[in-house]
Amino acid sequence: MLTAIEIQKIINQKIEAIFYPTVPADLYQPIRYVLSLSGKRLRPTLALMACNLFSDEVEPAIEAALGVEIFHNFTLVHDDIMDNADKRRCQLTVHRKWSDNVAILSGDTMQIQAYQHLAQVPAMLLPKILQRFSQTAVEVCEGQQLDMDFEKKTEVTQEEYLEMIRLKTAVLLAASLQIGAWIGGATDQEAQLLYEFGSSLGLAFQLQDDLLDVYGDSETFGKNIGGDIVSNKKTFLLISAMNMATGTLKDTLFHWLNADSQQPQDKIQAVTEIYNRLGIKILCERQIASFHARAFAALDALSLPESRKATLIDYTSSLMQRQT
Amino acid sequence: MLTAIEIQKIINQKIEAIFYPTVPADLYQPIRYVLSLSGKRLRPTLALMACNLFSDEVEPAIEAALGVEIFHNFTLVHDDIMDNADKRRCQLTVHRKWSDNVAILSGDTMQIQAYQHLAQVPAMLLPKILQRFSQTAVEVCEGQQLDMDFEKKTEVTQEEYLEMIRLKTAVLLAASLQIGAWIGGATDQEAQLLYEFGSSLGLAFQLQDDLLDVYGDSETFGKNIGGDIVSNKKTFLLISAMNMATGTLKDTLFHWLNADSQQPQDKIQAVTEIYNRLGIKILCERQIASFHARAFAALDALSLPESRKATLIDYTSSLMQRQT
Repeated sequence: MLTAIEIQKIINQKIEAIFYPTVPADLYQPIRYVLSLSGKRLRPTLALMACNLFSDEVEPAIEAALGVEIFHNFTLVHDDIMDNADKRRCQLTVHRKWSDNVAILSGDTMQIQAYQHLAQVPAMLLPKILQRFSQTAVEVCEGQQLDMDFEKKTEVTQEEYLEMIRLKTAVLLAASLQIGAWIGGATDQEAQLLYEFGSSLGLAFQLQDDLLDVYGDSETFGKNIGGDIVSNKKTFLLISAMNMATGTLKDTLFHWLNADSQQPQDKIQAVTEIYNRLGIKILCERQIASFHARAFAALDALSLPESRKATLIDYTSSLMQRQT
Repeated sequence: MLTAIEIQKIINQKIEAIFYPTVPADLYQPIRYVLSLSGKRLRPTLALMACNLFSDEVEPAIEAALGVEIFHNFTLVHDDIMDNADKRRCQLTVHRKWSDNVAILSGDTMQIQAYQHLAQVPAMLLPKILQRFSQTAVEVCEGQQLDMDFEKKTEVTQEEYLEMIRLKTAVLLAASLQIGAWIGGATDQEAQLLYEFGSSLGLAFQLQDDLLDVYGDSETFGKNIGGDIVSNKKTFLLISAMNMATGTLKDTLFHWLNADSQQPQDKIQAVTEIYNRLGIKILCERQIASFHARAFAALDALSLPESRKATLIDYTSSLMQRQT
């Protein structure tokens, strides 16, 4: 079996080897640019690891792995336009480096390229893999729309938030694992367990991101602490606090939400203090632990030798243990 | 065999019957809206007619026909953002009626839905139909990028322009015919002839659009005459004139191209006069006739009874004969 590092090396080599026409330059240069920004390669890594659970040969899953990675990067390019984001992975976003039009059209092209890679899976598996991928892709769009809707809504429940991040983030991890498993020779039942593993894991990852933004170590987390608080981002923490706070605590919270962010540090400190008084950190940690347990219960239910599962367990556990 | 009207009725019924979730409303309402604006349904009509050439049963080609129609409408939604267009088929464009973000994301979703419909074709044909469709989709994006590039370029050759409209417009007509033919049971060679028919026909259609914008009858053409001239749009006519004009005629042309459009009628009249002096109308008509002849040569090479081809010939000929 391959290690995480070996798998990531394969993925990066394959991504670097993708051929792009030189013309039109404004269509293909942004695609090369965004795919070179690397990132964790989480989704293709999961796809190849899931394949490797059932087969020593991961080669047949590489095209599908590239497909999900390119699709994910397409969503980042378009989301960055919609969110008006300047930076992505410490580099200028495509719409800032080029223009909105270039980002729209090169993103559209990436979505097609994702399908071109996915279409290379073994023909027998093509219909069901396509169906899973397309359904997932639509769900990711639904998640992005709900995320934008929530920015304008005053009341969002925890359930609504969890459903949004399930769609926006978790289902693509889940589908990557499921598709990789199918290609490795998994039965539908086995592949479904990996889907459930990925779905719960994705929810745990996103909640951990929300948590680390407030309670993380800024050096290891690699982002400024409190960014979500400053921008009033409706994370699991803020939504929980808005729903749980009463009386003067609620007034104080809404005062800070409506305040001009002249003194971001004051706001971060004040809102964090409210979270502390409401026990939001523990609430979030419990929710993460619950999704984590659900994820590993799905993996436990998979009848494979533990040694076979070790790479996937180690890799996903290391992602969960980062920077807290 | 079905008539054009029967085919269009089937297509419109199927499009009206598409199910949309109610939530998120801003994702699905724009899709329903843009697909209800109808239009000619040219691409799905060609797909079903091509199928009907080889099979009395068009039902197996309906999902592919819907796929190409939804893909085409997706390109309109995104192109309208890029071109900053207010109206489409006399109605507000999606990005004007909602917002750029809504138009980006509902367009993205339509592209996935196009693949969901295409994935319903008979499994044996799926790999090659997907490959043709994806290649075509990338080409359409390339065409749109070239079109935007040409706006900024001072010199564009006729060849470059024809290649741009081939990509932006012709290949999707061609692929619609080819895919429909495959589903109807055509051999690869027969389907290729229909691809060539569609490709040449698409070029002829676009050049005719360029011509009608200047020389059409405003009542039957349904658009204001001279719109392309007012906006300096690099059509086949303008590109030919820019390349052919010399001396004072060239100076006059570039004077009008750089002039403020305070008096659009003066500009339309002056530029049309230049076209007349250069014989641009005849040049364009000859080019159209050449593509038309090439299209019908491909159709002639198809070994089918003429009676079988009559519907397709009548339908495409009627489109060519409109409003001149």
